[in-house]
Amino acid sequence: MAKKEVKKIVLAYSGGLDTSIILKWLKNEYGCEVVTFSADLGQGDELEPVREKAFKTGADKVYIDDLREEFVRDFVFPMFRANAIYEGSYLLGTSIARPLIAKRQMEIAKIEGCDAVSHGATGKGNDQVRFELAYYHFNPGITVVAPWREWKLNSRQALINYAKRNDIPIPITKKRPWSSDRNLLHISFEGGILEDTWLEPPENMFVLTKAPEKAPNKPQYIEIEFEKGNAVAVDGVRMSPAELLAHLNTIGGEHGIGRVDLLENRSVGMKSRGVYETPGGTILREAHMAVEQITMDREVMHLRDSLIPRYAEMIYNGYWFSPEREMMQCLIDNSQQTVNGVARLKLYKGHCRTVGRKSESDSLFNLDFATFEKDQVYNQADAEGFIKLNSLRLRIRSLMLANKKK
Amino acid sequence: MAKKEVKKIVLAYSGGLDTSIILKWLKNEYGCEVVTFSADLGQGDELEPVREKAFKTGADKVYIDDLREEFVRDFVFPMFRANAIYEGSYLLGTSIARPLIAKRQMEIAKIEGCDAVSHGATGKGNDQVRFELAYYHFNPGITVVAPWREWKLNSRQALINYAKRNDIPIPITKKRPWSSDRNLLHISFEGGILEDTWLEPPENMFVLTKAPEKAPNKPQYIEIEFEKGNAVAVDGVRMSPAELLAHLNTIGGEHGIGRVDLLENRSVGMKSRGVYETPGGTILREAHMAVEQITMDREVMHLRDSLIPRYAEMIYNGYWFSPEREMMQCLIDNSQQTVNGVARLKLYKGHCRTVGRKSESDSLFNLDFATFEKDQVYNQADAEGFIKLNSLRLRIRSLMLANKKK
Amino acid sequence: MAKKEVKKIVLAYSGGLDTSIILKWLKNEYGCEVVTFSADLGQGDELEPVREKAFKTGADKVYIDDLREEFVRDFVFPMFRANAIYEGSYLLGTSIARPLIAKRQMEIAKIEGCDAVSHGATGKGNDQVRFELAYYHFNPGITVVAPWREWKLNSRQALINYAKRNDIPIPITKKRPWSSDRNLLHISFEGGILEDTWLEPPENMFVLTKAPEKAPNKPQYIEIEFEKGNAVAVDGVRMSPAELLAHLNTIGGEHGIGRVDLLENRSVGMKSRGVYETPGGTILREAHMAVEQITMDREVMHLRDSLIPRYAEMIYNGYWFSPEREMMQCLIDNSQQTVNGVARLKLYKGHCRTVGRKSESDSLFNLDFATFEKDQVYNQADAEGFIKLNSLRLRIRSLMLANKKK
Amino acid sequence: MAKKEVKKIVLAYSGGLDTSIILKWLKNEYGCEVVTFSADLGQGDELEPVREKAFKTGADKVYIDDLREEFVRDFVFPMFRANAIYEGSYLLGTSIARPLIAKRQMEIAKIEGCDAVSHGATGKGNDQVRFELAYYHFNPGITVVAPWREWKLNSRQALINYAKRNDIPIPITKKRPWSSDRNLLHISFEGGILEDTWLEPPENMFVLTKAPEKAPNKPQYIEIEFEKGNAVAVDGVRMSPAELLAHLNTIGGEHGIGRVDLLENRSVGMKSRGVYETPGGTILREAHMAVEQITMDREVMHLRDSLIPRYAEMIYNGYWFSPEREMMQCLIDNSQQTVNGVARLKLYKGHCRTVGRKSESDSLFNLDFATFEKDQVYNQADAEGFIKLNSLRLRIRSLMLANKKK
Repeated sequence: MAKKEVKKIVLAYSGGLDTSIILKWLKNEYGCEVVTFSADLGQGDELEPVREKAFKTGADKVYIDDLREEFVRDFVFPMFRANAIYEGSYLLGTSIARPLIAKRQMEIAKIEGCDAVSHGATGKGNDQVRFELAYYHFNPGITVVAPWREWKLNSRQALINYAKRNDIPIPITKKRPWSSDRNLLHISFEGGILEDTWLEPPENMFVLTKAPEKAPNKPQYIEIEFEKGNAVAVDGVRMSPAELLAHLNTIGGEHGIGRVDLLENRSVGMKSRGVYETPGGTILREAHMAVEQITMDREVMHLRDSLIPRYAEMIYNGYWFSPEREMMQCLIDNSQQTVNGVARLKLYKGHCRTVGRKSESDSLFNLDFATFEKDQVYNQADAEGFIKLNSLRLRIRSLMLANKKK
Repeated sequence: MAKKEVKKIVLAYSGGLDTSIILKWLKNEYGCEVVTFSADLGQGDELEPVREKAFKTGADKVYIDDLREEFVRDFVFPMFRANAIYEGSYLLGTSIARPLIAKRQMEIAKIEGCDAVSHGATGKGNDQVRFELAYYHFNPGITVVAPWREWKLNSRQALINYAKRNDIPIPITKKRPWSSDRNLLHISFEGGILEDTWLEPPENMFVLTKAPEKAPNKPQYIEIEFEKGNAVAVDGVRMSPAELLAHLNTIGGEHGIGRVDLLENRSVGMKSRGVYETPGGTILREAHMAVEQITMDREVMHLRDSLIPRYAEMIYNGYWFSPEREMMQCLIDNSQQTVNGVARLKLYKGHCRTVGRKSESDSLFNLDFATFEKDQVYNQADAEGFIKLNSLRLRIRSLMLANKKK
Repeated sequence: MAKKEVKKIVLAYSGGLDTSIILKWLKNEYGCEVVTFSADLGQGDELEPVREKAFKTGADKVYIDDLREEFVRDFVFPMFRANAIYEGSYLLGTSIARPLIAKRQMEIAKIEGCDAVSHGATGKGNDQVRFELAYYHFNPGITVVAPWREWKLNSRQALINYAKRNDIPIPITKKRPWSSDRNLLHISFEGGILEDTWLEPPENMFVLTKAPEKAPNKPQYIEIEFEKGNAVAVDGVRMSPAELLAHLNTIGGEHGIGRVDLLENRSVGMKSRGVYETPGGTILREAHMAVEQITMDREVMHLRDSLIPRYAEMIYNGYWFSPEREMMQCLIDNSQQTVNGVARLKLYKGHCRTVGRKSESDSLFNLDFATFEKDQVYNQADAEGFIKLNSLRLRIRSLMLANKKK
Repeated sequence: MAKKEVKKIVLAYSGGLDTSIILKWLKNEYGCEVVTFSADLGQGDELEPVREKAFKTGADKVYIDDLREEFVRDFVFPMFRANAIYEGSYLLGTSIARPLIAKRQMEIAKIEGCDAVSHGATGKGNDQVRFELAYYHFNPGITVVAPWREWKLNSRQALINYAKRNDIPIPITKKRPWSSDRNLLHISFEGGILEDTWLEPPENMFVLTKAPEKAPNKPQYIEIEFEKGNAVAVDGVRMSPAELLAHLNTIGGEHGIGRVDLLENRSVGMKSRGVYETPGGTILREAHMAVEQITMDREVMHLRDSLIPRYAEMIYNGYWFSPEREMMQCLIDNSQQTVNGVARLKLYKGHCRTVGRKSESDSLFNLDFATFEKDQVYNQADAEGFIKLNSLRLRIRSLMLANKKK
């Protein structure tokens, strides 16, 4: 493929070895201006030092933005209003972060007059798809440079050699035998030794959660309040979305909550093992479902639930910025108007369980209807007609089958 | 409603106070012969004493049948091949048992030449629907007597008075402040003090599981092998379906696994709180999903998953014997042909987690495809075309929207 | 069942024999005040004479309301934005009218201080369900009197005798051997001779449409313009919703368009034959789909389409006023924001076909992308990567299956 | 892209100018042996002359196979058992043919020891995807040569020049201003003048159908019999699948039935207009639905119907040979066990309509249940309980909303 001409490019830059090499490689190969962009999504690293590093490696301009509140408010929370989960296990921590990075990257591209963008995702993974679908959404004509699909640096050694030749400092710390991605919602691990799908992940890999065996011996109870499907307070204390999620991460991590080991299906067509820690998110989802139990109509819930695999797939596959996701969000958000109430959860040794839920304003649980003793609102005799008509088509069918046998 | 004339009736009889009263009431009100039927579904009670009790209370004939293997093989396992779960939490332990009881009851009705059947389910619950839909499936013309919907014994005291007047022995043990249903798959609790949805269920209520706090301090690892989606062995030991489930119940119960507290939607239209212990079933479902991860095609899984809420609803609502459930089962069973492999789980303090999975014969996880280093089977450059075409409709839409703004 | 006490009741009253008998019967049996309500939904009859008739038969107060614009704007159009169709054929003409009648009836009940409502639908049909679900939505405590389920007048002769005894004039015209329901959207026929499902309906039954054989020999072309999914103009002339539908009925009827003969499944569990004439609606749906073709994103369309059977079922079954229908409507209406454009249709001898569609503002059809000659926007080489990655999981599976055979 | 080495290739060969150029181009560019394969799928052309033409243009071996019965029996009929339709209009005539061509092509590749296959589909269309997904299913390692994505002959003139230079005879007949594909199920038209989406297709384009205006002035009635969802006889005469479809094409074509004009969404992401003639298929689908009306359970039908958009998408997108399509087919075929009966249709001037249906063995329409007069099987009073319980959740919700307003 002939190289496209590029004048000025925005690179999603973490400051690590890989994106440092990419930064230099872009300068070398494209001879273009490079603007780096680093987003604080709560990955826990100090980002300011990245500035100097970027300039040293050749950046012409550096953007460092704190996107934590936007991340949780406009990306994590809408997704949690849907109880989205991929393949029954994955809470989409990386999937939901990529569109926001891409969105801000494209804003910078506009501000800076760039004709191209670049990222450090490989050609085998989901992230390239998530980045680029979002790029094209914001500017269908943008040029995308995906170095991993383009260059010949196809082994760890080739990368290190390139770094040495280009005076890029190589971290002294030994590379861990897996790769990972972290933000306020989760940390993920994949590759390396995890590719033996039969082997338990090593305890020293985990970052956000204590081992359940090391967690406190005493359970902890927490109460989470929701308004229109969004968590607004923990144990009576109101917090901003990002504060609240960070707070739940701390509590959940302490109790070893939210570890998942999943062999999942990538959008590019292969299976891949992902191990995840999502302490706060795991608690949040359980609590949200508890409040829905008492405030959400049955048919609304069942219909919504049948759509969630598809909605989660959209996010996993990179279609956050798409008309179908937006359309689905309308339905989801409509279902959340009544989701106002409080959930009570018990946290203990790697697990959290609902033990209570209530709603002052929107409870659909009516003791008068559900108790077995009295018959005012609900007339037990009605059940006969209900069953008789619901069985009518089955009875007709049985008659037909019986006639057929004759 | 005028009473239907009944000559001979089969009553689903547990030997407890309620069905004893029903037995007597049927004799008194209908003046008919009464055949009692008690099924051993693994509820843990000795059923033989029920025989004498039934005769004493007026039964004309008594059936006691051990249906445990049929229950697990033909009802529980097909349902677990689907990973069926109701409203995200309930493993359908009671729902799946009712159709089998009804099936055998109708067989007995045929053998004994009965013109009616009866059960002890109330007029507010799901079980009346499950029993009666199945009855009508087997004989659309059968007469169903549902005493709770018919009699005037609408309070606990009225029942006790009736028992006293009719020489039915009243158990000395104090009635527990909830009702429960138990079989090989689970025990359920509802009603009474549980109706305060904010209150945690009391520890002394639980039967099948140790409190997580009392569970062993050392995790236990187990390996479960599956063939065509059915569990066939635990830790290398092959067992029959019922043996296997009983074995997992013991292990799971020891580790406090499988407690669920759910405010659920009944088929008759009200919300009701159910608390469940499903130790073996919880382990089984996790293990099954782990083996599916490595053996099941992505699109098969996603399509199947989108149908499970509907399938679970069918079972919950009593439509086990229905053409739509059978049709869905065809799809599910087809998806299970390749689900052959072993899952490795870690059990600890109320929680079980997958830590490994493998399949000799049907693994779709191919290290050659998933590793990041080499590029033989998978050409990273292909990803560009993949992304470009997948984004085409999004790019066209962006162009349209941009034009519109002008 | 003991009769409930009723003080004042609103009866949905057509002025025909059946509802006249009901009016009298309510007076006789309940000894209550009766308010009659007749809605003009475009059924083509002059309603004013109904006033005198109602008073003569014993009404205490009479309401006659023209609801045509509300009907089309707030009920028919939202449903047509979804292309709703029941069992592939029925455009829901009766189903969509019942909720509006019930809504207005309940408003009158409130104004007049009534404690009950009544309707003339039988106990075997869908309409009783549609009326009553809507009644209970507006007032969960309302008393509903459904005479057909209550009285003993179970044959035509019994009704006529009752009428004679109560001085209710019996129409001289011979009763037609079917029953029908008409409004601005359609006329339906069922029962009587139509119950022979093998017999073609007689030509003299049809009301709104010419026989295709009698339709003009020359095709007619029409253009219908849509804004946000709603038809706003025909052949360049803007009209109100009700005017537009009436206009299309005239044109479509002239060309014999919109006859459907369907053996359908009722919500009460039986099959029933319905024959329908929906001239304007049939044209409207075809035109709407044509404009969607050029303005609607593929994934939006496919996702929406998969939900339409369920949405149509909701309306058919009487759940117009339900949270699940409202939730679904959010999704549908979101999908219609871009549905702006014009469809061109050819009408001829019982059939209408799209022959052109265009959209100035929202066309997603881009000649540059679709032509086969040039390669600027679309790079044909991209298709290889697209196919390669889409086939990856299939290739892996084939490898697995090949290994298995060995 | 570097050219892959190819020794022997099977080319799907029609004998037309394009595939003749491809045949020569493969010899020139790849210097490989070329086996041509031409399938008789009922496209109406004599295929024997193709043999000589192929040899003259350089073929090393020629296969010509009559696949008509296999096509209709194993591809068309399974799809029609599902009533599959793409985007509400397209009966998938081309989509369903490609997998069979690819299947036979791969069988030949195996017989002949070929390492590659080739086809004449362009890089912008759906057919390349359909061919290649099927190729990879049968042999994941096969080399695919797609000349239109590879060569530089990107205009009509370039092609003609290439033909002239290589002594390939150029047809004297003027190229029609559209392209088309024909088989026993349909003929399709796209491209050229059809790309003006507002313009009606010219009458002289149509091949299989008379203009409705020219169709007989007298309607024709036909009866089609189905067994397990497959048509087996027309007007009492049993025929093989291919004979039956051919027969219906003749009748339907005479009456101008089955023309469709659709702006559709391609799998590669763009919209494209397709005009189709599917006379026999249109009749077949209508008749099949008619027999389903009388023999298929309601819930089976509604569930199945909700899956058809997805099923049709699979076929349209080229996933005929995929585990998800096979899984779905299990469900569909299970639903067809009772679809035994006869449909009666009226054909007239471009339209066919059901006017009757019957089933001796599997009718679920029971006059006893549906008539309004007698009350034996169906007790009208049951409807009250049915409505009361179905409305319970709506009533509770109304109470909640009323409380909230206070």
